[in-house]
Amino acid sequence: MKKWKRSARLVDMTRQLLDQPHRLISLSAFADRYQAAKSSISEDLAIIHETFREEGTGLLETVSGAAGGVRYLPIANRENATKLSRQLCAQLENPDRILPGGYLYLSDLLGDDRLVREIGRIWATVFSGRGADVVVTVETKGIPLAYATASHLGLPVAIVRRDSRITEGSVVTINTVSGSSKRLGSLSLARRSFPEGARVLIVDDFMKAGGTVQGMIDLMGEFRAEVIGIGIMAESQVDERLVENTVSLATVTDVDVKNRKIAVELGNLFTQGGFFDGTNPD
Amino acid sequence: MKKWKRSARLVDMTRQLLDQPHRLISLSAFADRYQAAKSSISEDLAIIHETFREEGTGLLETVSGAAGGVRYLPIANRENATKLSRQLCAQLENPDRILPGGYLYLSDLLGDDRLVREIGRIWATVFSGRGADVVVTVETKGIPLAYATASHLGLPVAIVRRDSRITEGSVVTINTVSGSSKRLGSLSLARRSFPEGARVLIVDDFMKAGGTVQGMIDLMGEFRAEVIGIGIMAESQVDERLVENTVSLATVTDVDVKNRKIAVELGNLFTQGGFFDGTNPD
Repeated sequence: MKKWKRSARLVDMTRQLLDQPHRLISLSAFADRYQAAKSSISEDLAIIHETFREEGTGLLETVSGAAGGVRYLPIANRENATKLSRQLCAQLENPDRILPGGYLYLSDLLGDDRLVREIGRIWATVFSGRGADVVVTVETKGIPLAYATASHLGLPVAIVRRDSRITEGSVVTINTVSGSSKRLGSLSLARRSFPEGARVLIVDDFMKAGGTVQGMIDLMGEFRAEVIGIGIMAESQVDERLVENTVSLATVTDVDVKNRKIAVELGNLFTQGGFFDGTNPD
Repeated sequence: MKKWKRSARLVDMTRQLLDQPHRLISLSAFADRYQAAKSSISEDLAIIHETFREEGTGLLETVSGAAGGVRYLPIANRENATKLSRQLCAQLENPDRILPGGYLYLSDLLGDDRLVREIGRIWATVFSGRGADVVVTVETKGIPLAYATASHLGLPVAIVRRDSRITEGSVVTINTVSGSSKRLGSLSLARRSFPEGARVLIVDDFMKAGGTVQGMIDLMGEFRAEVIGIGIMAESQVDERLVENTVSLATVTDVDVKNRKIAVELGNLFTQGGFFDGTNPD
């Protein structure tokens, strides 16, 4: 049996915890692995918790009792979440994003693994404790955000398709109407994606009037699933919104195609009544 | 200035390194952050390196000189890679995957964030050192694998679309012919996805004859990009292959629709001449 030094034990425990967010690890499992007393393990866990907490990247949650243990919860604190979202706003304001019709090019942001991972950390913080069973998104650009969020919550991902493919097996399909352009479309999800009654967290990259998100909510109804939250990276300010209760990091208030200017503000996650609105102590 | 204890420093250094694969961090940056001598930092890094290496999950690479420092390289060693791929083979053999036409349902595997992340770690190991600038995949099911691989390599992702969308801006499109079913299709990639001459790593979930992968290679040619590697989660054994030099974790040798049996073997990554074929010392 390998003899672990305390310094190596701290490194290895940190690695194991970071690698398995939201997964409960028993103190006995750690004690066995490192051939150490539970009291020593507890001391180490206290150091790890304190270090994570001070950097605002996560914390350890201890569950007592026979089935107890410790789990790592990735966290974005208010300071880090605000800083990241301000950076996102600044990037969104780059006029090179403007496409014909006032659409915005976002693929570079969604291709940036580090940015995507930090956005996922914010959603994991906001929706932690709501008991989600699965993260759901619609192809294509929402997928990286869904995986980033799911990895921080230790959950699986289910992807809604715009066209049903043979490789999905039997699917449930609903028809949709885009809220902004009144275009018709459809959304499909494989029947075996998750069991009936699952609690789902919806994540997407961009929302205008909310036709697609409303379609996803309707589709979840067909699975008798409960939508426990909706996280949107950036939303467009519109007069008529189809969906309420979405949470956004950034709000695009104006796209001036002629003068090539985009105006972006922090999303409703940071405004009054939002999760990071400044009224919470931390 | 905060005073760091050695134990907290080890935890925080581990977290920082794991969080930024392949990114060079200078010893001075660490020394400044922790208000510690570079010799102490070096000692800590040696402990972290040794702990990661023994668990077969990664290693630290030291770069000497004025612009030097240390970077974390995630690694799957042969033992871990073989174990994971055997699990994958066993999961692929589940006859419930069989769909009409002999297609296989894979979305559950690709929705499993932990599995996907470990597959990404294997590709990061195999293709590390080939100087990739970007990971490229085709929507939809390849996307999680591409992000997992990119996150371990510290690279961005570019997603090839099967239909060009207005939100991609100007795109390059090529027409494709599926090698197995002779179906026509098209592949598009946004012009601004990456600069001309980039070195790309292609990742996908499943390959039959290789029509889609050949299409991606052709598309990369339009960008004057160099394909430095092609990683496929599972390939189907076929008589006529359109693409050579792909690397696979699993090979589906037979799908017997009538008797509901799927036969799967370890992919060419593990067979003679493969990366993990047993001739390498570690």
